[in-house]
Amino acid sequence: MTDDLLERTRKFVDTEVLPETAWLDARPDVPTPLTSRWHEAGLSNWWLPERYGGPGASLSTSVDVVSELSYGDAGFAFGSFLSILGTTLLHLYGDHDLADGYLTRMAGGGGCCAILISEQEAGSELHRTATTITADGDALVLDGEKYFSTNTDAADFLIVAGRAADDPSGYSLVLVPRDAPGVEVTKRWDMIGLRGSGTYAATLRGVRVPAVNRLSGNGLRDLEAGLNASRILIAATAIGTARRVRDVCMAYAATKKVKGALLVDNDVFAAKLGQMEAQIDVMRNQCLAAAAQFDGLMAAPNASGALYRAGALRSALAAKMHCGQAGWQVATTGSEMFGGLGFTHEHVIGKLVRDLRYVGLVEGGDDVVRDLLFGRYVLPAAKRL
Amino acid sequence: MTDDLLERTRKFVDTEVLPETAWLDARPDVPTPLTSRWHEAGLSNWWLPERYGGPGASLSTSVDVVSELSYGDAGFAFGSFLSILGTTLLHLYGDHDLADGYLTRMAGGGGCCAILISEQEAGSELHRTATTITADGDALVLDGEKYFSTNTDAADFLIVAGRAADDPSGYSLVLVPRDAPGVEVTKRWDMIGLRGSGTYAATLRGVRVPAVNRLSGNGLRDLEAGLNASRILIAATAIGTARRVRDVCMAYAATKKVKGALLVDNDVFAAKLGQMEAQIDVMRNQCLAAAAQFDGLMAAPNASGALYRAGALRSALAAKMHCGQAGWQVATTGSEMFGGLGFTHEHVIGKLVRDLRYVGLVEGGDDVVRDLLFGRYVLPAAKRL
Amino acid sequence: MTDDLLERTRKFVDTEVLPETAWLDARPDVPTPLTSRWHEAGLSNWWLPERYGGPGASLSTSVDVVSELSYGDAGFAFGSFLSILGTTLLHLYGDHDLADGYLTRMAGGGGCCAILISEQEAGSELHRTATTITADGDALVLDGEKYFSTNTDAADFLIVAGRAADDPSGYSLVLVPRDAPGVEVTKRWDMIGLRGSGTYAATLRGVRVPAVNRLSGNGLRDLEAGLNASRILIAATAIGTARRVRDVCMAYAATKKVKGALLVDNDVFAAKLGQMEAQIDVMRNQCLAAAAQFDGLMAAPNASGALYRAGALRSALAAKMHCGQAGWQVATTGSEMFGGLGFTHEHVIGKLVRDLRYVGLVEGGDDVVRDLLFGRYVLPAAKRL
Amino acid sequence: MTDDLLERTRKFVDTEVLPETAWLDARPDVPTPLTSRWHEAGLSNWWLPERYGGPGASLSTSVDVVSELSYGDAGFAFGSFLSILGTTLLHLYGDHDLADGYLTRMAGGGGCCAILISEQEAGSELHRTATTITADGDALVLDGEKYFSTNTDAADFLIVAGRAADDPSGYSLVLVPRDAPGVEVTKRWDMIGLRGSGTYAATLRGVRVPAVNRLSGNGLRDLEAGLNASRILIAATAIGTARRVRDVCMAYAATKKVKGALLVDNDVFAAKLGQMEAQIDVMRNQCLAAAAQFDGLMAAPNASGALYRAGALRSALAAKMHCGQAGWQVATTGSEMFGGLGFTHEHVIGKLVRDLRYVGLVEGGDDVVRDLLFGRYVLPAAKRL
Repeated sequence: MTDDLLERTRKFVDTEVLPETAWLDARPDVPTPLTSRWHEAGLSNWWLPERYGGPGASLSTSVDVVSELSYGDAGFAFGSFLSILGTTLLHLYGDHDLADGYLTRMAGGGGCCAILISEQEAGSELHRTATTITADGDALVLDGEKYFSTNTDAADFLIVAGRAADDPSGYSLVLVPRDAPGVEVTKRWDMIGLRGSGTYAATLRGVRVPAVNRLSGNGLRDLEAGLNASRILIAATAIGTARRVRDVCMAYAATKKVKGALLVDNDVFAAKLGQMEAQIDVMRNQCLAAAAQFDGLMAAPNASGALYRAGALRSALAAKMHCGQAGWQVATTGSEMFGGLGFTHEHVIGKLVRDLRYVGLVEGGDDVVRDLLFGRYVLPAAKRL
Repeated sequence: MTDDLLERTRKFVDTEVLPETAWLDARPDVPTPLTSRWHEAGLSNWWLPERYGGPGASLSTSVDVVSELSYGDAGFAFGSFLSILGTTLLHLYGDHDLADGYLTRMAGGGGCCAILISEQEAGSELHRTATTITADGDALVLDGEKYFSTNTDAADFLIVAGRAADDPSGYSLVLVPRDAPGVEVTKRWDMIGLRGSGTYAATLRGVRVPAVNRLSGNGLRDLEAGLNASRILIAATAIGTARRVRDVCMAYAATKKVKGALLVDNDVFAAKLGQMEAQIDVMRNQCLAAAAQFDGLMAAPNASGALYRAGALRSALAAKMHCGQAGWQVATTGSEMFGGLGFTHEHVIGKLVRDLRYVGLVEGGDDVVRDLLFGRYVLPAAKRL
Repeated sequence: MTDDLLERTRKFVDTEVLPETAWLDARPDVPTPLTSRWHEAGLSNWWLPERYGGPGASLSTSVDVVSELSYGDAGFAFGSFLSILGTTLLHLYGDHDLADGYLTRMAGGGGCCAILISEQEAGSELHRTATTITADGDALVLDGEKYFSTNTDAADFLIVAGRAADDPSGYSLVLVPRDAPGVEVTKRWDMIGLRGSGTYAATLRGVRVPAVNRLSGNGLRDLEAGLNASRILIAATAIGTARRVRDVCMAYAATKKVKGALLVDNDVFAAKLGQMEAQIDVMRNQCLAAAAQFDGLMAAPNASGALYRAGALRSALAAKMHCGQAGWQVATTGSEMFGGLGFTHEHVIGKLVRDLRYVGLVEGGDDVVRDLLFGRYVLPAAKRL
Repeated sequence: MTDDLLERTRKFVDTEVLPETAWLDARPDVPTPLTSRWHEAGLSNWWLPERYGGPGASLSTSVDVVSELSYGDAGFAFGSFLSILGTTLLHLYGDHDLADGYLTRMAGGGGCCAILISEQEAGSELHRTATTITADGDALVLDGEKYFSTNTDAADFLIVAGRAADDPSGYSLVLVPRDAPGVEVTKRWDMIGLRGSGTYAATLRGVRVPAVNRLSGNGLRDLEAGLNASRILIAATAIGTARRVRDVCMAYAATKKVKGALLVDNDVFAAKLGQMEAQIDVMRNQCLAAAAQFDGLMAAPNASGALYRAGALRSALAAKMHCGQAGWQVATTGSEMFGGLGFTHEHVIGKLVRDLRYVGLVEGGDDVVRDLLFGRYVLPAAKRL
């Protein structure tokens, strides 16, 4: 079912996304009509397992799908793949019927979900969350303010991180229907890049959900497991954006004259592009290696347990950090090439630089990632590569 | 007369510019009311020699003035100092009376001038200009299309680069009044940064000026001489912007908690800021050294000849390239610090990154600067440091 | 047969190589007794196909073998794996019986071979070789001076690059027995690093070999095919050396006090090591991806043809360049950590920096690699990633 | 008296030092005959004030002197200038007669002094020194083990850092004659670079000196004041070494052919050298700016107090860190240029890389410098640039 997924993605990007780059960067209302067409093309939520009626693509395949999508528009890519975090968590740690219901609907309807973790005070340090989960008979009541979450407004359901009101160390993830009373989306952020996607602040006030909506396991560990999928695809965004940078450089160089010859025949230019091509290859191979490790764990007899024990994978952490850093180098080199024109909004390079910036920021900035890598994979000598 | 120039600039920035950062970034009509207040404060065109009624500040002083202005807004700084290129050329190579008239008016009125060099085809390679200068009796007739020039629309006068219609190697600079018939500003560019300034495309069609408006000397050499001043001040923009980056990092760190403590007490943060402080110091000292060299040449008995012979100064080229590169590193480090918030337009860091980008692009990108440095200062062994 | 290859390699390194790091760096006569013990352990030339009686390990496995060996000593690793270039060429493009004879002997005896390409004038530009191959009846006569080649003195056979005396565009590789009359090793270079291996200059004067010793195909294309194997393993040297850098940093940090606490508890140190771990992971995944591509081509029905057509693989070029650059960053960071001690020969870090330097230099420096990547994989749009 | 100092230095380097590069790198016994000839040429200890009979050169002049010397050999430079730390401390904080005696002798005899700070446990953290200073009547008794100190063996006198035996917070610097009983030089380190200088470990056991030998003020503050001079000249070593790297690149490029043309005509090469020239210019201007600040303080009416209050200068810290980092980039670029030859001891580039490494290590590694810059110049907002 996923055989020609990549080919179909490429075609969709060529005909639907690339012509709309500027419009997507203008922060359109989301979801845009593109999202409907993406679903009509049978491509939405391509990773959803076949048991829910989804296409069942692996994360390895998803790396290239996301690379193609971000070649077109990183914001559209982000909005399209980020649900993988919520769906993976629901699939692995959610009640069976709950998962069945939501994920089947999502596979059929092309909807999305959102994950509400970050808070203004706590930032990305989940153990400092101020969101409370209060047990009340067979129900859970959630209260909190969430800072940044993507797709929230249009989501079918939200996965909300919080701690037990009566047990500060009891972290949990809870599925909350988007239309549950007490859920309010308070604003859409005006983002620097990824402007084809929608990121929001939201409030939960006395939101009641059945106790079965609580995902099993410690919420922090659940999250670590699930973040592997989204971190790898965030990294993959950098591949597609870097490929686009390379290609706009080549297009410019084919017509621009420097020192009496076309730029494309200039040795200094060639050296820069040769370096970029290596960087693109390395970024992709790192993402593919991380995705293969993730796919391996998902194929394990007890995938939930295997991923829970594994936690944040070195390869996924390294993928996100490396692609953020290498992608930024590519963007930096690219942004120096177009003279004054590249400093105007008439050229796409400025957008590509802005889009790329997010890779090193979301779901753990580089400082957080370095800390995790050190604590998990360097300090314990047996875990070192 | 320039004793308290720096102090007055700081005060102006504090009270007038800093509160308007967001508004200036919204691409207001220019010149903005700020420009009038800058003139009313007696600070406009602060480098104009006293013989024209100007404050007569040195380029060394100007480095710090520009650093202060760009701390407030790099676009406002750019718009305020870029006239130095035109005024320096007119002062050095223009007819005495012509210079007297225009520069005296400018000192009194707080106006600006623009320099029209770049063209779409020729880019920054001035020897490929397609703008023609045709002698017609006692007049010169100019025809051409100019791609990027700043302050053009509001300028008192323009300095236009072109070649003799009958001598392709006869490059000249010609002063053209802004209101000369045939001068048309065709658009204001939508720039990525420096949005508090105005950069334009312009057309000259059969523009007639007296022959005395032609600056003496070969236009390419004249330009090289004058570009020293503006390149050094472009470099100085990076100092001010980097200082602002540092300070917004410190402000954030004073309230943000990470790992149970304020970010300002975090050793990794401290290391980043310590590195920034060194980079700021080095940028400033390079700009000051280049400015001192320029001031020395300007103080020579035959400044015009001395600068004409010197051409592009190593120190000025190095200042622009180094500040572009080091400033970009500071901006990159800074832009990683604010988590999601730093990826929104609610935080100023995104603007600072966009503003900083221009230092490595205008008046010779890094590739051009490296070529110049190699050809002028490495290849001839006697010229090497 | 290769199941426990990696485990046995690790053990060999622990017991035999690591204790001899300083001695290996003192430029001992080669081959050292270590090489004999490596062979006695059944580990020499581990990649040789089983049809010749070799262990038949894949290049993917070899990446980790080389990483382990270079953890012990990069020079010992280099001397041990570099024969893969010659044996791969002989296996793919050599006469069947010739290959059978030499490679079977090598598998049994633990010998090595050398490849003589570089020349003083031509450098790494093989098409400028001045070595001539003159047909004389059923024999070929070779004359030339070769600049850098490793293992030459102890080799069973040499693969020599040259051009036909009567056809300047007729590049060939020719197998020359080490003991053929006219072959003279003129000096062993005093290398900066990899001092546990031997690199030589050599002269060929009227060296006669049978015509069957000429490898089939154009010598330049043959070489490109074969260099994939050695370039990937050169890249893998950087993995092992970087792992060693990380571990000596950790060992030092476990006892060194800074600001009143152990260095290992210092956040700035942790950040550096977390970055290193990511770099190591990325280097390894790139090498493994390149090796998997190479192994795939070698497993093709017509491996010779497949590799001949493929030429220099993007992944192999990117592996060598990336590992050279990332490895150098790791070495640079590491070399700053040990204070004065790290600037003495009493600490191993200086050796590790020297060893690492070669990755970006041999078998195509970064400038050559960037040129190749641009020409082969960026300029033809269809070849881009 | 210092008018032609620079010219004489250049001549000395050309005729005496440059021909001996390889010999100096072979770790000759020190002081070498070169040191005598340097003194005979009237150039030794060129910074010693005229009141002691010295040449009285400023630190600004010294920056260029050291750049010239390190162009010849960084080790010879280091050995020649490092006494400035001890002489500056003695001049500023020593008893008048004591300073007079030792510095006059040194000016006349061309001797050197050493400063014994670092210890194995305490590293560069002076406040953790285990060296004790015990008052015994009119005498002081010193006991301790010092790890790294340069020129110790040949020194006229040593400045030793320690703490009062009866007051752990009582840090002092004490002048100890080299030939005082109980002073033992225990070994000469085998350094990676700067091998033309001598660095030692030393022991002090019951070393008795008159109480007047204690320098006034807190030893830690004294040191900070004095380190400004040596840190700036250490930074200046990077200038000279980088200039040498540039020139060996140019010499190679004048004869080496690449892609059918001389390397010197290759655009990628030109770009690298253009970048280097800018880096050299920036390094020098930073050192000169720091030196000018130091010279200004030394010229103040109360230089001792002024420097004591100023402590570690931002400009000096930034000079050392920047030159270490930029110099390393130049060395890295240079070391990639010479193919295999550059990886042998037959080419000087390897030595230049080794020499350059020390700039970022001694008298405060980059981590220490960043900490100082943050604590002194960023945290107190009023101190920021």
